[in-house]
Amino acid sequence: MKRNSEHFFSRSRRSEEFELVLLPSEETERRLGRVRAAMASHGISAGLVSGNVSKFYLTGRVFVGWILITSDTVTYYVRRPVELRGENVVYVRKPEEIDFSCVGDGVLGLELDTAIYSVVERLGKAAGVTSPGNLSVALRDARSVKTAMEIELIAQSGRMQENVYRHIPGLYRPGMSDLEFQIEIEHLSRLSGCLGQFRIAGDSMELFMGNVIAGDNADNPTPYDFAMGGAGADPSLPVGADGTIITDGMTVMVDVNGNYTGYMTDMTRVYKAGEISALAEKAHHCSMEILRALEKMGVPGTKASEMYEEAERIVKSHDLHAYFMGHRQHAGFIGHGVGIEINEAPVIAPRSRDVLAEGNVIAIEPKFVVPGTGAVGVENTYVVTASGLKCLTNMPEEIIELH
Amino acid sequence: MKRNSEHFFSRSRRSEEFELVLLPSEETERRLGRVRAAMASHGISAGLVSGNVSKFYLTGRVFVGWILITSDTVTYYVRRPVELRGENVVYVRKPEEIDFSCVGDGVLGLELDTAIYSVVERLGKAAGVTSPGNLSVALRDARSVKTAMEIELIAQSGRMQENVYRHIPGLYRPGMSDLEFQIEIEHLSRLSGCLGQFRIAGDSMELFMGNVIAGDNADNPTPYDFAMGGAGADPSLPVGADGTIITDGMTVMVDVNGNYTGYMTDMTRVYKAGEISALAEKAHHCSMEILRALEKMGVPGTKASEMYEEAERIVKSHDLHAYFMGHRQHAGFIGHGVGIEINEAPVIAPRSRDVLAEGNVIAIEPKFVVPGTGAVGVENTYVVTASGLKCLTNMPEEIIELH
Repeated sequence: MKRNSEHFFSRSRRSEEFELVLLPSEETERRLGRVRAAMASHGISAGLVSGNVSKFYLTGRVFVGWILITSDTVTYYVRRPVELRGENVVYVRKPEEIDFSCVGDGVLGLELDTAIYSVVERLGKAAGVTSPGNLSVALRDARSVKTAMEIELIAQSGRMQENVYRHIPGLYRPGMSDLEFQIEIEHLSRLSGCLGQFRIAGDSMELFMGNVIAGDNADNPTPYDFAMGGAGADPSLPVGADGTIITDGMTVMVDVNGNYTGYMTDMTRVYKAGEISALAEKAHHCSMEILRALEKMGVPGTKASEMYEEAERIVKSHDLHAYFMGHRQHAGFIGHGVGIEINEAPVIAPRSRDVLAEGNVIAIEPKFVVPGTGAVGVENTYVVTASGLKCLTNMPEEIIELH
Repeated sequence: MKRNSEHFFSRSRRSEEFELVLLPSEETERRLGRVRAAMASHGISAGLVSGNVSKFYLTGRVFVGWILITSDTVTYYVRRPVELRGENVVYVRKPEEIDFSCVGDGVLGLELDTAIYSVVERLGKAAGVTSPGNLSVALRDARSVKTAMEIELIAQSGRMQENVYRHIPGLYRPGMSDLEFQIEIEHLSRLSGCLGQFRIAGDSMELFMGNVIAGDNADNPTPYDFAMGGAGADPSLPVGADGTIITDGMTVMVDVNGNYTGYMTDMTRVYKAGEISALAEKAHHCSMEILRALEKMGVPGTKASEMYEEAERIVKSHDLHAYFMGHRQHAGFIGHGVGIEINEAPVIAPRSRDVLAEGNVIAIEPKFVVPGTGAVGVENTYVVTASGLKCLTNMPEEIIELH
């Protein structure tokens, strides 16, 4: 927390606090350039950014309003907060005050995969457009390749998350439930600077601060599209810890919020109270073997689907297929892009058409659910480099003893 | 936490765990009846529910899938999780497998104010519908009047939240920052059974576990549409605590997550370290005066806009208008419905057309920001009864000493 407070104070005491764009100007140009290139490749001549995530990407802050981008202009239309300033900052009360004349006869892109239906309808009407282009696809493409500054922010989250995970065994007390253990991990995370907010693209997935899953609760299916399940503490949020008391022979999988900088890492380690089954140990080592193989394989140009197939080949060679990515219910992917949101591009799944590019940041999480023991497997966040995947969540991967 | 765990275990050990609908059948019929009546009054003959919040409302659980409702049928189309069962439960892999024949020539309503644009487009295409009705409006109406069971769940959250707030002074240590104080309040809330998840309707507001705002940070404008601001700890989440060290003469406003049952209460109390300005004390008492007036006024049939006007009249009579609902930036409302989400109907605002109905649950939060001191004011959650507002967050309202 100190770290964030200091960061904040050092920022807030300067007059730049009131500048709408908090990014260095070269960084702003770099990101705008990525968005413009992606817009062009999707046939969009102007884009109206409306979502918090992409506004944060393009400015370094969240505000209520819109960013109108063409190939050579950018205008920041702001509703709230008051008092922001900067080049091309225009205060408006409603989207009908936006000047769309720069769009001309071109295709206006709106965030069709991000924004609410009636919001898109209203923006389209304000712009006089009936068939908007899908700006979400362009933004998703642009954001999937991180800049050096973004990679450093993700790496910083990784270092802070590692530090929390190293101290997890000290939080354990025999007789604890998974929920009590999770709450202590959340508390330590927050004291260590975790911002709490867990951003997920789409409108169907929900998660509070992450998942701590003990024993057979790992085999309870969740509705959400996460790699692992868990019944949750209440049917209004059916995922993760369910009050299971942690006992000998059980694994505890910890996969909690890595958002320390507005950019997050995704990291899973497994803890155990007492000895666990040989099958679970074997599956955990299989997960590590998969990571080693994919770390080498993951160079720019590699097909995401081939990475999935390689993982599956290794799983089958160990005869562990029945437990891979779940047991009663199986997840359909082993990895996903990470950044401002937990589920960015590319996706490492059998039918994915994504191809790795230098600067992608991906979490890979080959996991298993072994009935009678619980969930095992490792998750790391990596940046794609010319020589393969570089790990941003560096911590020993073996199952860690709780007592 | 114990409370939730026990609740969970007592549920999960029974075979009903696998029933899709977890509500008692009379309760299901009551809620379906409310939705059908609201659909009819909005000219919608069939509704396809797609959002987690309304699925939870109608079944008592979150699942991935859709609920198709007509005047005399209801079908639960489920994608995930596996293994659910019950009358009219149909497993599908995609929305194109939904049988829309029951819609006939009628108007199909979709969640236009809730669902993402491309999701609505896909559902509309699957149903062969080009101009769907707005089911969101009907669902918002239906959900704004709570059933007795819902009111009891909200009241239960209120009792648990009160209990946490009573223990807040014991969490304070001199020299703490607002962030450290907030983290201890979050921790106690979670240990006391708070589910963490803070559901907000719409796609522009974000909040983690609530707001703890000390001193002049209350006057930092936030982009989000909350009653109070705060700069936040990071520009990616610009609201609330910003690392301000709590010192004498400062108020600390605590407005944290009251979701203990899937239904939430919203409650604010103010704490102080040492004596504060007479102006701030005066404004706090003005807030209490407003609540007393609105508690009597808030009977079924009262216009929300008139409640706002009455609050404003009291504020002006004390010459406190410059500080009301903010100082550098003012919020445009003093109250809002609460339930599964923090921003339900009705809205207590000057231009609101809402009229109170028996069974509405509303949070009222007349607040002030006094420069040099901080935020003051009280927020309670009330249920609307024939004799006025009944408080569900019962705890002394005076400013509470931290040491």
